[in-house]
Amino acid sequence: MDAAEFRRRGKEMVDYVADYLEKIEERPVYPDLEPGYLRDLIPTEAPCEPESFEDLMQDVERVIMPGITHWHSPNFFAYFPAASSYPAMLADMLCGAIGCIGFSWAASPACTELETVMLDWLGKMLQLPECFIAGTHGHGGGVIQSTASEATLMSLLAARCKAVRRVQAVESERSESDVLSKLVAYTSDQAHSSVERAALIGAVMMRKVPTDEHFAVREEMLKKMVEEDKAAGLIPFYFCATLGTTPSCAFDHITKLGPLCNKENMWMHIDAAYAGSAFICPEFRPLLNGIEYADSFNFNPHKWLLINFDCSTMWVKKRTDIIGAFKMEPLYLKHENQERFRSLKMWFVFRLYGLKGLQAHIRKQVALAKEFESLVQADNRFEICAEVILGLVCFRLKGSNELNQNLLKRITKSREIHLVPCQLSGRFVLRFAICARTTESRHIQRAWRHITQLAFELLQEQPH
Amino acid sequence: MDAAEFRRRGKEMVDYVADYLEKIEERPVYPDLEPGYLRDLIPTEAPCEPESFEDLMQDVERVIMPGITHWHSPNFFAYFPAASSYPAMLADMLCGAIGCIGFSWAASPACTELETVMLDWLGKMLQLPECFIAGTHGHGGGVIQSTASEATLMSLLAARCKAVRRVQAVESERSESDVLSKLVAYTSDQAHSSVERAALIGAVMMRKVPTDEHFAVREEMLKKMVEEDKAAGLIPFYFCATLGTTPSCAFDHITKLGPLCNKENMWMHIDAAYAGSAFICPEFRPLLNGIEYADSFNFNPHKWLLINFDCSTMWVKKRTDIIGAFKMEPLYLKHENQERFRSLKMWFVFRLYGLKGLQAHIRKQVALAKEFESLVQADNRFEICAEVILGLVCFRLKGSNELNQNLLKRITKSREIHLVPCQLSGRFVLRFAICARTTESRHIQRAWRHITQLAFELLQEQPH
Repeated sequence: MDAAEFRRRGKEMVDYVADYLEKIEERPVYPDLEPGYLRDLIPTEAPCEPESFEDLMQDVERVIMPGITHWHSPNFFAYFPAASSYPAMLADMLCGAIGCIGFSWAASPACTELETVMLDWLGKMLQLPECFIAGTHGHGGGVIQSTASEATLMSLLAARCKAVRRVQAVESERSESDVLSKLVAYTSDQAHSSVERAALIGAVMMRKVPTDEHFAVREEMLKKMVEEDKAAGLIPFYFCATLGTTPSCAFDHITKLGPLCNKENMWMHIDAAYAGSAFICPEFRPLLNGIEYADSFNFNPHKWLLINFDCSTMWVKKRTDIIGAFKMEPLYLKHENQERFRSLKMWFVFRLYGLKGLQAHIRKQVALAKEFESLVQADNRFEICAEVILGLVCFRLKGSNELNQNLLKRITKSREIHLVPCQLSGRFVLRFAICARTTESRHIQRAWRHITQLAFELLQEQPH
Repeated sequence: MDAAEFRRRGKEMVDYVADYLEKIEERPVYPDLEPGYLRDLIPTEAPCEPESFEDLMQDVERVIMPGITHWHSPNFFAYFPAASSYPAMLADMLCGAIGCIGFSWAASPACTELETVMLDWLGKMLQLPECFIAGTHGHGGGVIQSTASEATLMSLLAARCKAVRRVQAVESERSESDVLSKLVAYTSDQAHSSVERAALIGAVMMRKVPTDEHFAVREEMLKKMVEEDKAAGLIPFYFCATLGTTPSCAFDHITKLGPLCNKENMWMHIDAAYAGSAFICPEFRPLLNGIEYADSFNFNPHKWLLINFDCSTMWVKKRTDIIGAFKMEPLYLKHENQERFRSLKMWFVFRLYGLKGLQAHIRKQVALAKEFESLVQADNRFEICAEVILGLVCFRLKGSNELNQNLLKRITKSREIHLVPCQLSGRFVLRFAICARTTESRHIQRAWRHITQLAFELLQEQPH
């Protein structure tokens, strides 16, 4: 394919993309097929000779589209949002054309530099303490990672390195492997599985801190565990706090946990993967109070800030902590020291939406969640299962887990809307997350009518 | 920005991309600016109100383009290629629109399934043993990773887990931390720094195996180190072989190293990041002989197979080894269990080029490297420093390192072509890699005239 054909096919693809997104509501949000469906629809080997673009695009509709869970349908309420916007897509086109690999300044100066400045822009939108901003006299700065999991792993490894050095500075006879075997990391029992996985990769112990009735970690509980572990000869070194847990969007008490971590020489990492985007709104910024105690902070603009995947932003208070852990230059701060020109997406989205446009997006989606919450509250067959703070509503039918499992099965089978469940204190709960950029009040109202209709049918069939 | 504006701006961007790539030769391949150039060119904060697309695109030319190292210029001969093609860019546009996050089958069936089948297609192109192909009765299969570094880390962690279990199965009283402290991994002294980094992350020892006069690891040397380490009470568990090293594209002797690893219960991972793409050509496939002994194999189609970054393909012989190490389901085989719909790029490129088109691309670029090699060989002021097997030529002026450093400085400063150096046996060597898809014989000839002109001037100035 030469440039002339790309001009033609590229414009056709722009229309295909716009058509797909404009008419996405007409497609069932969730596919109706069995695992393994695809293999029979395409050849077992690549073609030897080139095929035509027309044939390929026909197969997109025949093979791919029937197997898509449409994350950007306004009827998609599962997981957390995956950000998507036209400005980000335009930036990705440019990024693909430039096609640089930014593993050092020389390999791509603009890529390296725009990233640092975009992290400063975003850090300022969040009102991060100055020590996290690179263009100041502080020692911190930000970097783009692929995922929150990657950011968690990097912070844990940096903390591990720092802890080993600190212990050995005092007890020079202790071997590294002895110290490693005594290190303990902590996180909420509500934390994402990737936190536990980071400890598995880093070969250190991880303990789950029990949460309170709001599914949040409180200072007392962590303090108790740390003291027990220290008494047993272990070395607490890391705590991963969560702001906006995956099951219920709960917030750990970082204003109290932070001073405890600082006092105990424990690295505090804050994972705000979903919730972080909301902190650009002054009314939600208090949820981030306590950030000043953190050593590192991460959230995913690719979840809720209209920047297509992947764009997970991480800030550290001391760049040298990361550099020390990886024996690398500042420019190699990344977990994988290779990347695309991802900051272009941030630049396009920030400039074409403006801060006000981004705030409007967050506020609209929180309002939609509140609207759904009101609908649930007004129906006494249902109950709300966790405080609705941002764009997630956890709810269930009053009654057994089985009843709610059956309700979800019917919802999934109907394919009009898509939800996923979670477990909260042993209870099977439905999660309703506002996801698509184009979700409006009418979608919320229709979703609720649909849910209540299925619930009505289900309850009718129950033995009394 | 709504769909209507995206249709308009998207088509403008398609033309911008095509114009950029058609006229890329007119731009200096390497930027002429100092680190920190960008911060002064843009505001210190994001705008509050939305800005116009026209202003943004003007800033792309004003702020971004002057800071780009043009990886797709036919005058770019640095590092290794970064793959780029129009079909891959079209696939990325579609991928952005679908915008699914493929962390489970249900989250995106087509994404999960197309990936498995595309890895089979590619595995068959490489004539991988059947045990690596998912659609067979074997226990293996392939998965897309972001980078070769990520694949190396995953293989090392899987090997670590397997080794601990094996030792503890025999000596049940040994603690995990004791076993970990005795594990030793090995790799070539020519291996990429990411291999050493994987060991650092995994908290295991790594030893560098000295290479022979062709910069390759031979069986004898690894065997000697393994025996010494075993005698010292250590536990050899992992060897990362390299096919096509970064400095000189050297090939470790895997047909001999493989049986040694198998006999010693050491996991053999093969990193063929750059060279792997060439194995789709029957004449280069013998370089992969010995793959049957490997536990895992990785290369980067995003380097040399016309699939834009990121697309690093990894196969394992036993899926359960990886699943066991990460306590995860097969669908979560990834290092980061989140991803974009990357297999679309493979599907588009394989179908629109066909196997023959891909082979033609590899063969053309190897021929261009051979052409450059001949030019160097015909000039007795220069010498070739490593056998030219694929698309990389290592060469230097006969004489001191300082002389060659000065030559490279002049090349870099002139900005007509771009090269980077390497060290081979203490000698400063220039690497000339065929990179851009559009590089032709005339670019090679012109590059050589340019290099010899600068060398002539430099040698004239030398005291005799």
